[in-house]
Amino acid sequence: MDATVDRDALVALRRDLHRHPEPAWREFYTTARLVAELESRPIDTLHVGGELLAGDRSGVPSDEELAAWRDRAREAGADEAVLDRLDGGRTGLVAVVERGDGPVVGLRVDIDALPITEASGDDHRPADEGFRSATEGYMHACGHDAHATIGVGVVDAVVESDFAGTLKVVFQPAEEVAGGGGPVAESGHLDDVDALFAVHVGLDHPTGEVVAGVGGFLAVQDFEAEFHGESAHAGGHPERGRHAVGAMATAVGHLHAIPRHADGATRVNVGQVSGGTANNVIPEYARIVGEVRGETTALMEYVDAHAERVLDAAAALHDCTVEVTRGSHAPSAESDPELASLVADAARETSGVTSVLDADDLGGSEDATYLMRRVQERGGLATYVGVGTDHPGGHHTPRFDVDEDSLPVAVELLTRAVLAVAR
Amino acid sequence: MDATVDRDALVALRRDLHRHPEPAWREFYTTARLVAELESRPIDTLHVGGELLAGDRSGVPSDEELAAWRDRAREAGADEAVLDRLDGGRTGLVAVVERGDGPVVGLRVDIDALPITEASGDDHRPADEGFRSATEGYMHACGHDAHATIGVGVVDAVVESDFAGTLKVVFQPAEEVAGGGGPVAESGHLDDVDALFAVHVGLDHPTGEVVAGVGGFLAVQDFEAEFHGESAHAGGHPERGRHAVGAMATAVGHLHAIPRHADGATRVNVGQVSGGTANNVIPEYARIVGEVRGETTALMEYVDAHAERVLDAAAALHDCTVEVTRGSHAPSAESDPELASLVADAARETSGVTSVLDADDLGGSEDATYLMRRVQERGGLATYVGVGTDHPGGHHTPRFDVDEDSLPVAVELLTRAVLAVAR
Amino acid sequence: MDATVDRDALVALRRDLHRHPEPAWREFYTTARLVAELESRPIDTLHVGGELLAGDRSGVPSDEELAAWRDRAREAGADEAVLDRLDGGRTGLVAVVERGDGPVVGLRVDIDALPITEASGDDHRPADEGFRSATEGYMHACGHDAHATIGVGVVDAVVESDFAGTLKVVFQPAEEVAGGGGPVAESGHLDDVDALFAVHVGLDHPTGEVVAGVGGFLAVQDFEAEFHGESAHAGGHPERGRHAVGAMATAVGHLHAIPRHADGATRVNVGQVSGGTANNVIPEYARIVGEVRGETTALMEYVDAHAERVLDAAAALHDCTVEVTRGSHAPSAESDPELASLVADAARETSGVTSVLDADDLGGSEDATYLMRRVQERGGLATYVGVGTDHPGGHHTPRFDVDEDSLPVAVELLTRAVLAVAR
Amino acid sequence: MDATVDRDALVALRRDLHRHPEPAWREFYTTARLVAELESRPIDTLHVGGELLAGDRSGVPSDEELAAWRDRAREAGADEAVLDRLDGGRTGLVAVVERGDGPVVGLRVDIDALPITEASGDDHRPADEGFRSATEGYMHACGHDAHATIGVGVVDAVVESDFAGTLKVVFQPAEEVAGGGGPVAESGHLDDVDALFAVHVGLDHPTGEVVAGVGGFLAVQDFEAEFHGESAHAGGHPERGRHAVGAMATAVGHLHAIPRHADGATRVNVGQVSGGTANNVIPEYARIVGEVRGETTALMEYVDAHAERVLDAAAALHDCTVEVTRGSHAPSAESDPELASLVADAARETSGVTSVLDADDLGGSEDATYLMRRVQERGGLATYVGVGTDHPGGHHTPRFDVDEDSLPVAVELLTRAVLAVAR
Repeated sequence: MDATVDRDALVALRRDLHRHPEPAWREFYTTARLVAELESRPIDTLHVGGELLAGDRSGVPSDEELAAWRDRAREAGADEAVLDRLDGGRTGLVAVVERGDGPVVGLRVDIDALPITEASGDDHRPADEGFRSATEGYMHACGHDAHATIGVGVVDAVVESDFAGTLKVVFQPAEEVAGGGGPVAESGHLDDVDALFAVHVGLDHPTGEVVAGVGGFLAVQDFEAEFHGESAHAGGHPERGRHAVGAMATAVGHLHAIPRHADGATRVNVGQVSGGTANNVIPEYARIVGEVRGETTALMEYVDAHAERVLDAAAALHDCTVEVTRGSHAPSAESDPELASLVADAARETSGVTSVLDADDLGGSEDATYLMRRVQERGGLATYVGVGTDHPGGHHTPRFDVDEDSLPVAVELLTRAVLAVAR
Repeated sequence: MDATVDRDALVALRRDLHRHPEPAWREFYTTARLVAELESRPIDTLHVGGELLAGDRSGVPSDEELAAWRDRAREAGADEAVLDRLDGGRTGLVAVVERGDGPVVGLRVDIDALPITEASGDDHRPADEGFRSATEGYMHACGHDAHATIGVGVVDAVVESDFAGTLKVVFQPAEEVAGGGGPVAESGHLDDVDALFAVHVGLDHPTGEVVAGVGGFLAVQDFEAEFHGESAHAGGHPERGRHAVGAMATAVGHLHAIPRHADGATRVNVGQVSGGTANNVIPEYARIVGEVRGETTALMEYVDAHAERVLDAAAALHDCTVEVTRGSHAPSAESDPELASLVADAARETSGVTSVLDADDLGGSEDATYLMRRVQERGGLATYVGVGTDHPGGHHTPRFDVDEDSLPVAVELLTRAVLAVAR
Repeated sequence: MDATVDRDALVALRRDLHRHPEPAWREFYTTARLVAELESRPIDTLHVGGELLAGDRSGVPSDEELAAWRDRAREAGADEAVLDRLDGGRTGLVAVVERGDGPVVGLRVDIDALPITEASGDDHRPADEGFRSATEGYMHACGHDAHATIGVGVVDAVVESDFAGTLKVVFQPAEEVAGGGGPVAESGHLDDVDALFAVHVGLDHPTGEVVAGVGGFLAVQDFEAEFHGESAHAGGHPERGRHAVGAMATAVGHLHAIPRHADGATRVNVGQVSGGTANNVIPEYARIVGEVRGETTALMEYVDAHAERVLDAAAALHDCTVEVTRGSHAPSAESDPELASLVADAARETSGVTSVLDADDLGGSEDATYLMRRVQERGGLATYVGVGTDHPGGHHTPRFDVDEDSLPVAVELLTRAVLAVAR
Repeated sequence: MDATVDRDALVALRRDLHRHPEPAWREFYTTARLVAELESRPIDTLHVGGELLAGDRSGVPSDEELAAWRDRAREAGADEAVLDRLDGGRTGLVAVVERGDGPVVGLRVDIDALPITEASGDDHRPADEGFRSATEGYMHACGHDAHATIGVGVVDAVVESDFAGTLKVVFQPAEEVAGGGGPVAESGHLDDVDALFAVHVGLDHPTGEVVAGVGGFLAVQDFEAEFHGESAHAGGHPERGRHAVGAMATAVGHLHAIPRHADGATRVNVGQVSGGTANNVIPEYARIVGEVRGETTALMEYVDAHAERVLDAAAALHDCTVEVTRGSHAPSAESDPELASLVADAARETSGVTSVLDADDLGGSEDATYLMRRVQERGGLATYVGVGTDHPGGHHTPRFDVDEDSLPVAVELLTRAVLAVAR
């Protein structure tokens, strides 16, 4: 491959993004920074914000919260003109490179962070080397800072190559809430794509290992349950209250005990709860944010149906009521073996790759499945590529970090794959 | 009784306080308003803020939160000079009226509000008549706005009477968290008191009914429990997490199931919980704020001991750890029958009183017990007086309100009682 | 008092009854033994079995179980002719002594035992001295062996005295399941009683102490809940089962957490459970036997209503169904102070009495309340008398035992009380 | 194949066994019946009872229970001489047919029934046609009656064939409690086996379908947990009890909520519980019988470790103690593909076979894995063969039944497979 990869530039960009983690639909600084990077390249078109999203979005925070994150982005140096294009938290961008006749190749990376407080000890490199999250309580704990960086790196490398065709790099927002994949798919930007690559670093694979076709995506459905009871003085009239926190607590235990299914893997998690106001008041309100998953959509729906019954009955048990709202959803999907095979071939030629696996299970969920399915339904191929990176802590934990040596590996691998499609 | 009671003035003050509910240790506006009222009266001494509090305080919020409430008070028109005297959330005041030789009589009223969102329907008079809480999420739902008003009314009436002796009216902060009673008792301001009256409106008694000597105070102990687990990706590695919200939920159910005790009434309440950050992360942290009560201190300690075991084992059950911190505490206490008898006699002469009960049980807790015990230990007498008021909703519920006709009744009753002591 | 009390005879009878504990409606040996005792006395009438029971009986075991206990009684030496009169488990007897004109005085003692395995250590006197329960799994753990003995002792003493009137001693079956009191009351045997004494030993009072008028009876309601789910192979198809034991377990925890009530004492207990057949089968059936109590009937009904909701919702939570059957019930009742006063006077003259309390709370339930209410409704007086006895273990525990020195105390006390009524 | 299969004889034997279901280690009638059948055939050796079992056995019932089942077998016509050989519940047999030089071929069938009450409606053929279980509460709900019948059928067919070699048919007891497999393996009877077939009917496959090599056995571990608390009078002193049933119930809910594992399938089931004695006694004892499973032994041990912690903490939560005893265990195992391939070939020639699957997952557990592993460790091959049968209800449910048309299919298939090994 002729294209050069500038490791230092990749590391610098990744560390800047790492310092500014922004959760779903609040990627203001991140989008502005990526626009600034890409506007300096010979890109043909940049679709920004609302231009790449269609249909309903789930998981969008309140206007107040959006405004606060936008202010924070501005203070961190985001370009006001770009911010104006991200109305209502419509973040993200698509970069299009047109280089004559040839196939349309898509690359999807995601850009959002998580509400996790980053580790601060000396043994956590971001803390030790000064690029720890500047926004307490939020963190790039799943490597999306690396993903965005890789997306820019592939644009650079393809631009410098003899690529003939069209490259579309999607910098997708709101993956962690399974919020962005659907609207990007709906927008139609990928409808003419012949081959789509989605990429994820880590996934318990070490630096140098590549998984050409990740599968085993769990279908996922988020939900929120709000319990309503009745407040009373806890000392004076305990019999007059209807304890919403009690109902919530009953639901938590029983959601986790939904029976396993013989047909395959299922998951259920209560990820966040709150309720009540003071020690001496019987709580009239409590809330659960959770999710159910399944190896297939049917299995996910099995857990979902049980979860609804558990929530209803837990409320009834405490003489309370409950409202259940379903949020984001992502389907399962499969990587196309022929495209995965092309990736495997590319991997074997890539510097730094020491191990190539044809396939492995993700074991989690991903709204990239919306994009993969959209492309596949229109006759294109899609594969989800894993690029190993040594990571000291697990995904979604405070000590997660990526091995920056894997950044040039990923860029070279994906550039080789893009070029191979066009050959 | 010669003293006149100005109903309109009482109502106006009560409604202003009702519009500005402030929870424990944040009674900035309330204290400033009361100081402004009393400075216009012929008061001998006003002890403000830190001058009436000694020893440790529990339930004090963070500096940030104190600052926000102080700002809000300033915006509502509180006098900056008074706010400067309320350093660190040391709110409240003691008004001293000296009128020659005679006994020292104490009156204790409390002034704090609750974190409850006030009802907003037309059938809730404060909403209908425009004095509903201006601070969303907080409310005078236990009548302390009336208590503070009654305290001012008694000062007025006593000042205009032929009272011979010393009157000390304590406007105590932080009753709802059982936080203020102890520090006020510790301060020694009441050490020379011969007769102490503490007053509460409502308590399920209608307007016109008086309970001369309330008893049955439940001893209370607040606690906070913080559960620590380990986060993990809920889809990718459910087996790696240690679910702190799960541990919390187990504790909630089992705290409420602590066995009843044959020796008397007990209570336990989980009043507030929170935990977790996102639907796809196994929560590493969760928190309970709760309380235990008992008809005697021994019964309260029985529940407390069980609660600690439940919290420890619930954490262990989910492979988590828990830290339990005990907060505010209030003992039980008894009203002195001879002083209650004096109140009963006064009640029979008071306009608007239609029913006099010698005694009744509170069924809740009160840190007035600290003051009553302090006075009793030093040879004085104390009684807790209930003044009935029709209240549409129960105490600590969004539709609580007082019947303002009970305000002049309470002022006349307590003034008569104060004068009777000095006779 | 002229009447003599033969301590040795009392001890011998009590120990024989203690060796042959029989639970509710299975008191075959006990009834036969008592009949044998009383037939040797100058008794006017003996009503046996069905002759003293009217209306529905609750808690009656199956015919098979009745037959097994009847066989056991026969083997232990019970008179076949008496057994023939105890058809369908209609046990118990009433002894009537008529001695000329005078009031009708009633004495009620109960005779059944409990399904508790008696302690077997040397420090447990019945074990050490050879009169431990001969029927493993059953035990006189509440002193009804002593009660029956006292009943016989009072007959002896009254017969030998100058008593003028009618004495009816009810040896009531099935107190522990609140089963016998109602049917005996229904029978009308006590409708002409002017004064009724019911007696209980122990109750945490030491030998020598008498409580003249026990009150504080808790109203009680037994219930049974049967959960129905669906079985499935636990390994092969966990998703096909509906776990009846899971539903039962959810109910257990939540029954015990029914909120306390400000108006007074409540109780709830799951006393027995079972369910399931094998480790690898998801259980399709489970069962709870429990009870609710309240200081008043209203409080008991409060707990009962909550219990029903908890049982229904716990079943729903596990996609199961539940059938709830209410069993025995006993109301609350009060001792008449004037009759209690007569007992207190008698106690002060009784040998061995060192302390006399006018009143104390039982804190438990008793179907003697049916009899007390029946007598009171017809214009008679009733009191429930506590006779202290040192007991090493608590009531209803394996190490319960009575101090046999309290037997003659009880006999003399009650005989004095009977005679006092007739004076 | 020359061998003839007598369908009527198979059906008659199967129905007789079906009428006499006997659970683990109590297969007295079954063993005697099989001995009687086989003694009329030209069998070389019959090892009976203790002769085929070595080492410790788990799940053996009490002597009393064994005696009761032995009595029942005798009444049903079992040969006293055979019963005498089944000392201590050592049931089962091995039939050995030696026909000259050739390989040693093993066939394993199991013979025990389940503690499930059989359906009694007209739509349940065994009820409708008069061969429903004669022992209420027990049932052949997993087809072992068919298995035993198939074993006899294969002996008949092989004996009549030109088979050259040794055939050993193991009629194994106590599969349902994973109790018999280990001791039979330990006995060494299969140590010289070159090819072992284990067979199971049904498994959700219809009549005519064959699975040549079943895999996906879950490793399983049974356990029993006994909770000890302290009894007390539920009304009089609720605070004195330590509620063993409460502890058990907490454990049930939390066992079922042990987190899923990303590495593969896990299971946990509470199959049976009991506890307590009477509604008014706080239970001092409760018991759980349960099991944990995993797709691998490591996964099973993961669940087992969590279960132990849950049991300990649930006891602690209620101030109780718990003793955990591990019972039967079965490892996972794999079918050898080359032997499965031989079975697939045989299936394609077998009358009535319409579909042949190379492999499928069992999804349950089986102690045949002990025998398969024993043979494999000594250089032999083993495969677990599924023979489809239409079954109206699922395995381990009251309406389970087999399609008797599958009996001759199974006999022919396995006979063909045995002969193929010897070719």
